[in-house]
Amino acid sequence: MSSAEFDFLNWLNAQHRPAANIVVPPGDDLAAISWPAGELLLVGVDQVLDGVHFDSAIHTPRQIGRKVMNRNLSDCAAMACLPAAAVTTAALPKGVGLDYAKDLYLGLRDAADPFDFPIIGGDTASWNGRLVLTVTILGRSAGITPITRSGAKVGDDIYVTGPLGGSILGRNMIFEPRVKLGRELAATGNVHAMIDISDGLSRDLEHICQLSQVGAEIDAVSIPIHGDAHKMNDNLSPLDHALNDGEDHELLFAGQLKALPPGVVRIGRIVGGSQIKILDKNGSRPLVAGGWEHTL
Amino acid sequence: MSSAEFDFLNWLNAQHRPAANIVVPPGDDLAAISWPAGELLLVGVDQVLDGVHFDSAIHTPRQIGRKVMNRNLSDCAAMACLPAAAVTTAALPKGVGLDYAKDLYLGLRDAADPFDFPIIGGDTASWNGRLVLTVTILGRSAGITPITRSGAKVGDDIYVTGPLGGSILGRNMIFEPRVKLGRELAATGNVHAMIDISDGLSRDLEHICQLSQVGAEIDAVSIPIHGDAHKMNDNLSPLDHALNDGEDHELLFAGQLKALPPGVVRIGRIVGGSQIKILDKNGSRPLVAGGWEHTL
Repeated sequence: MSSAEFDFLNWLNAQHRPAANIVVPPGDDLAAISWPAGELLLVGVDQVLDGVHFDSAIHTPRQIGRKVMNRNLSDCAAMACLPAAAVTTAALPKGVGLDYAKDLYLGLRDAADPFDFPIIGGDTASWNGRLVLTVTILGRSAGITPITRSGAKVGDDIYVTGPLGGSILGRNMIFEPRVKLGRELAATGNVHAMIDISDGLSRDLEHICQLSQVGAEIDAVSIPIHGDAHKMNDNLSPLDHALNDGEDHELLFAGQLKALPPGVVRIGRIVGGSQIKILDKNGSRPLVAGGWEHTL
Repeated sequence: MSSAEFDFLNWLNAQHRPAANIVVPPGDDLAAISWPAGELLLVGVDQVLDGVHFDSAIHTPRQIGRKVMNRNLSDCAAMACLPAAAVTTAALPKGVGLDYAKDLYLGLRDAADPFDFPIIGGDTASWNGRLVLTVTILGRSAGITPITRSGAKVGDDIYVTGPLGGSILGRNMIFEPRVKLGRELAATGNVHAMIDISDGLSRDLEHICQLSQVGAEIDAVSIPIHGDAHKMNDNLSPLDHALNDGEDHELLFAGQLKALPPGVVRIGRIVGGSQIKILDKNGSRPLVAGGWEHTL
């Protein structure tokens, strides 16, 4: 089968469902949206790379598409906004064929459809390299002030929305972005800083502390450890995995909740200074950020 | 030198200049912009791939960054909008180092700065693959109705904004996006469909004709042929290069101009039906779209 870019583009554009706010639909140089007056526009982009964020020898194109969209939706969750539209790029290894490209798109849609927003543009190319997929998400505040990473205050408690660690065993491909929960939390008015755990709890807590200019104390015994962290067959403890593994995509936040929604666990508190410590029965030690970092 | 992602991110975030409409600056899960009431939001994304859109063995990171941003700005030109903000991804080959990453960013800024808009987010990762860079552009209508590809009418003339062909000799890396000219043309009210020539005149004219449901006649003698098209050392004529080479990034448009701005040339007219023909002293023949197409 010889299949070409424009066949794919025609198929893609046919997937678009007209919506009143999409003034210029996909298929032009740019798409155009009429943006609701007074609503903040949130924007960010995430990519997935073969061999880093997925393995094309193992994962299906549908799984890969779903993951990159869900990474972006998890950013929406962390900002407490609603996804409004997305654009995407695909760098396709030569010869993957039309069905593979369609499945990538259908994976994007699998993740997007529960939130009912359109994919309104993209750029597809083939090359002699490995698969790269990106999604840029546009979010709208929709009545809730976005929660940044920089608002944590001394006296806040620190919380996570679910068990952590060992996501590499499979959850890193199929996590559920906490969009609904993020907005419920923000709507209480008692959440001051929030982030989604993509780099690992220790690293992402460091992001909050640095941007909020505060320190933190974490209670080791309170950290919810996922069953997968116990199944990791290496020389690290389950706690180490819960602290440092990336791609859990639970929410990590600081605030003063009056009641804990289901699944939300208090794991520590914000303190003055800039140090991040972990406390256990032997005392306290610095929590060294051990999560994922790309070396350039 | 061992340099890491977060050093780069800290450097990147320090490049951001505060602006009143950027409510959440780069460095959070998403950036947030207060969008002007009543202004259309235009959005699109373009990528450049090593070995396809540039050659990392030849081109500097600064040239590569400039090119991908300019590709997006050329889309803004074709829609007659003003760039408002951008987000970017970089998939960096392991070991390129911090300075290389910075130069890619500085290339993006080289292209963005003349239009005074910020880069408000991104995603950087390193991998065992070749360089991939993407830019997502947000544009604003800013008082001018966007020009789509679908508005060409029978009786319109067809125009291009400059000489075509042979861009591969170097112009494909250093073209100037026609943002100002695109808006001037649109402001006349007499431009009905517009596109930037990225895939080649023949292919991009086909895009306009298909979406506008019209045909076209092109006068071979009127097509402005760039000097580079004469320097191509192959068995194609300069006219073939002008018709089919991609990445000229001049604007191709249909309308009924009362006066031609400097550099703008009338090359044919929109006709009924769906055929695209080229006319020369020997008569007319179908103009077969021969521009760039990715095979999947």
